[in-house]
Amino acid sequence: MPGRLDALALDGDTRARLDFLVAAHGLTAVTRLNRLLDGSRAETSAEHSWHLALTALVLAPAHGGAELDLARVLALVIVHDVVEVDAGDVPVYGVAARDAAAAAEARAAERLFGLLPADEGAELRALWHEFEAARTPEARFARAVDRLQPILVHWAGDGATWREHTITEAQERAMVERVAAFWPPLRVVAEALVDDAVARGLLAERGPG
Amino acid sequence: MPGRLDALALDGDTRARLDFLVAAHGLTAVTRLNRLLDGSRAETSAEHSWHLALTALVLAPAHGGAELDLARVLALVIVHDVVEVDAGDVPVYGVAARDAAAAAEARAAERLFGLLPADEGAELRALWHEFEAARTPEARFARAVDRLQPILVHWAGDGATWREHTITEAQERAMVERVAAFWPPLRVVAEALVDDAVARGLLAERGPG
Repeated sequence: MPGRLDALALDGDTRARLDFLVAAHGLTAVTRLNRLLDGSRAETSAEHSWHLALTALVLAPAHGGAELDLARVLALVIVHDVVEVDAGDVPVYGVAARDAAAAAEARAAERLFGLLPADEGAELRALWHEFEAARTPEARFARAVDRLQPILVHWAGDGATWREHTITEAQERAMVERVAAFWPPLRVVAEALVDDAVARGLLAERGPG
Repeated sequence: MPGRLDALALDGDTRARLDFLVAAHGLTAVTRLNRLLDGSRAETSAEHSWHLALTALVLAPAHGGAELDLARVLALVIVHDVVEVDAGDVPVYGVAARDAAAAAEARAAERLFGLLPADEGAELRALWHEFEAARTPEARFARAVDRLQPILVHWAGDGATWREHTITEAQERAMVERVAAFWPPLRVVAEALVDDAVARGLLAERGPG
């Protein structure tokens, strides 16, 4: 890519931005645990990021997010998974795997945001840190939606992903608690989906093995 | 879906928002002309929408967009293709096909945004109209990026999509003019990519037939 970029009649900063945007497009090749609703293939992290942004846009006003800086919420959501281009997606159910992934994600952030002009790369890296740290209201809302969206998609897919991976009611109740811990007004949505999933027998009583 | 939604212990407005979000997830099943950079499959409109949002975020400050309402730009981009859930994607190269698609997209907007509580559906429909009408600065910038992003992805994929569909230099020069007409400061980027594509022989001199 750098070789081809050098051929473009553009200044170095503009080339650097295109280099980053082309690298980030790799998020379309990173697959997640859940399938599309038609079951045809796994959802990609790029698709998840878009649906997350739409979910944030639609749910914020009614669930305590009317005062949030919406541009910041959307930017956080759009940028939060870019590190997976290098580090891959780690399902939320594996806590140990997620800890191990942290170092890989930090290296990925260094490389990917490092493709940008220095100050712009620092800004995007700061957004990613803000999302991960979950201390600002915008990041807490974004984190809650990032936990809620998979519950919605699993539920809408009649629990196919839950069954395929033998996800238990206890695991999904824990997800509801994480949604609620990040953003209490979204608890009601997560809880209603999991309650219905349990009523319909879509979640396992115990895990595999 | 309505049947399952009725089982959720949520008020009607919240159910309506979830109904819309599940329907919109269908954008992950709408495929576009271009393949992913690894050639494995077609890019989906959901992935395109995400990459467009990232592209807008990264290019706005340096290309005359620093004063734009960024929340509005991102919302326009996130919502602009939702109608394709019903109407499908119509490649930008077919002008007649695009005109024919307008009626189908209007019906799709009616149905899909109509799933939401009335005032919220009207707001999202207004965003879609704003994007299509391209009269506000935010919509003009979003429209330019929507024309630029495919040029970037085609270029980064070594012109595989251009060759597969025998896209000509004249067609792609016309795309550059559309980028420039929507947002002049982005002309330089589109032009550099097409100039390089021409120099590398990635575009046809004449179309098929």
